[in-house]
Amino acid sequence: MRLLLGIDIGGTNIKIALIDKKGRIKAKKTFPTADFKGNRALIERITGETKKLLAEYGVVKKDIIGVGVGAPGAVDIRSGTVHYLTNVPDWSEVPLGNILKNKLGLLTFVDNDVNVMALGELFFGSGIGAKNMLCVTLGTGVGGGLILEGRLYRGSSYAAGEFGHVPINIAGPRCNCGSWACVEAYVGNNYIVRDVITQIKNGEKTLIKKLVNGKLSKITPEIISRAARAGDRFAKEIWRDVGNKVGTGLAGVVNLLNVEKIVIGGGVAEAGKILFDSIKKTIAARAMKLPAKTVKVVKAKLRRDAGLIGAAALVLYEAGI
Amino acid sequence: MRLLLGIDIGGTNIKIALIDKKGRIKAKKTFPTADFKGNRALIERITGETKKLLAEYGVVKKDIIGVGVGAPGAVDIRSGTVHYLTNVPDWSEVPLGNILKNKLGLLTFVDNDVNVMALGELFFGSGIGAKNMLCVTLGTGVGGGLILEGRLYRGSSYAAGEFGHVPINIAGPRCNCGSWACVEAYVGNNYIVRDVITQIKNGEKTLIKKLVNGKLSKITPEIISRAARAGDRFAKEIWRDVGNKVGTGLAGVVNLLNVEKIVIGGGVAEAGKILFDSIKKTIAARAMKLPAKTVKVVKAKLRRDAGLIGAAALVLYEAGI
Repeated sequence: MRLLLGIDIGGTNIKIALIDKKGRIKAKKTFPTADFKGNRALIERITGETKKLLAEYGVVKKDIIGVGVGAPGAVDIRSGTVHYLTNVPDWSEVPLGNILKNKLGLLTFVDNDVNVMALGELFFGSGIGAKNMLCVTLGTGVGGGLILEGRLYRGSSYAAGEFGHVPINIAGPRCNCGSWACVEAYVGNNYIVRDVITQIKNGEKTLIKKLVNGKLSKITPEIISRAARAGDRFAKEIWRDVGNKVGTGLAGVVNLLNVEKIVIGGGVAEAGKILFDSIKKTIAARAMKLPAKTVKVVKAKLRRDAGLIGAAALVLYEAGI
Repeated sequence: MRLLLGIDIGGTNIKIALIDKKGRIKAKKTFPTADFKGNRALIERITGETKKLLAEYGVVKKDIIGVGVGAPGAVDIRSGTVHYLTNVPDWSEVPLGNILKNKLGLLTFVDNDVNVMALGELFFGSGIGAKNMLCVTLGTGVGGGLILEGRLYRGSSYAAGEFGHVPINIAGPRCNCGSWACVEAYVGNNYIVRDVITQIKNGEKTLIKKLVNGKLSKITPEIISRAARAGDRFAKEIWRDVGNKVGTGLAGVVNLLNVEKIVIGGGVAEAGKILFDSIKKTIAARAMKLPAKTVKVVKAKLRRDAGLIGAAALVLYEAGI
């Protein structure tokens, strides 16, 4: 059986895997992104590990359908150029796709990590069969990938899908993107944690404080979720508020795009039912009747290896398999 | 030369026209929507006037490529069903497309009026050549039509494009749609006028009051524009604020869809430069760098007869001409 090669370039780790056409990982290698002096050394390592992976699994080039790569930020898909890569200081406008294609001698496709995740959910996850869908990741950043009319929608300069930077207030907190009051400026990991710390410092009584033994710098979304599951009123209110903010942004997407599915993944999505209930309630209250009735909000199915499996899906998608 | 038949069903008037393939109106009839006892009488009149128009212009059925109809609200394009029609009390779920097709014996297409307007701008107006574009109408209601990848984007239940109901605040004024703080709840005609009246009653000094001889119920967007053009500080501030609200909603669309063009029409768009400058400034401040650089905001080219010309464009679009 022929296989796919998935490469997931993250801020922390780079993962490379052999994946079958059903999205199952057959063999995998992981190494840290920050270990390299520059982009040349990093690319050497990627190609080296890829060749090792093939050899160890006992397959050769002709067994590989193609290579899919997911990378953070905007990607120019024509040349596979990745504009920036945090933790690799000299990385700027590197045509990673073209370089890998030449070095590996394999069909290679590169796209933005959230676009790749959307394709992963479409081919192998919660989005199977969807015609129009938004895929959202809730984490440090808030990302989005759009499937419209069954196709990945990239926009006029490959920059579409930025759900995290849809404004949900006229005025509001500064956002990393340079604007303010974007969805991410309220529900990005750091913003949630900062808000919780501020409220605790202002005297809020909550289990969260006990769970970190008073060390507020140890607060994470996971800790807030643990407190919420234990019934902590304040922690539950935090997730309801996050759901209201995300749901307000999504109500706009539902009215604008009349998508039938919204798939939500990322670390913050692990807050689970209380968050999803609040998102759904907000969409029901704020989106128009017909599109609100049409849309289903579901949790992403692919978890830890979503980037890898999505990268494999990118190959199937681009090769039309 | 073969011609197109355009029918524009509005809340106030119904217009029927013979239009050539370049979008030029050759002959036209107009009559009020509210003159009829029920939907049967109205449809009789439409077919009667259509036949009269053909006879008067000296053409027969085989000279007509097809009939395009633009109607308000959600339209099920499969049967051409128009769900509601204000001013025609017994109009509910009428399969207008199928009825006209049978009665006229012509290829017939029906779609939402703003979708039709978007096609009109794409074929004959400010949107020629655009691949990804949002068409916005600013009037009593705020509507939107989307062209994505060169195709009219209708969504999973033909309800897409509702830019007027994208929320721009977590909390805010009630909107006609049942939600609150939508774009339309700030910049729909009546909301703008109501806001101006409130501020004048609260003691605001403005030329607007003089222009209506103190009769505040006579205030319209046109009057506010006239005051703004005459240099009235308050009136100018109103349009800047409308531009900020519209621009905030559009910044979200730009980040989400990375469209290359935004075409703005409707009565409120006549406020002109001061409004457009404010919209552009807000998008530049609030959208991400790359998509903000990509997008052009322009005024709609088709004016009074946009609905008719759009209806003709719908025929060309659907027939693949």
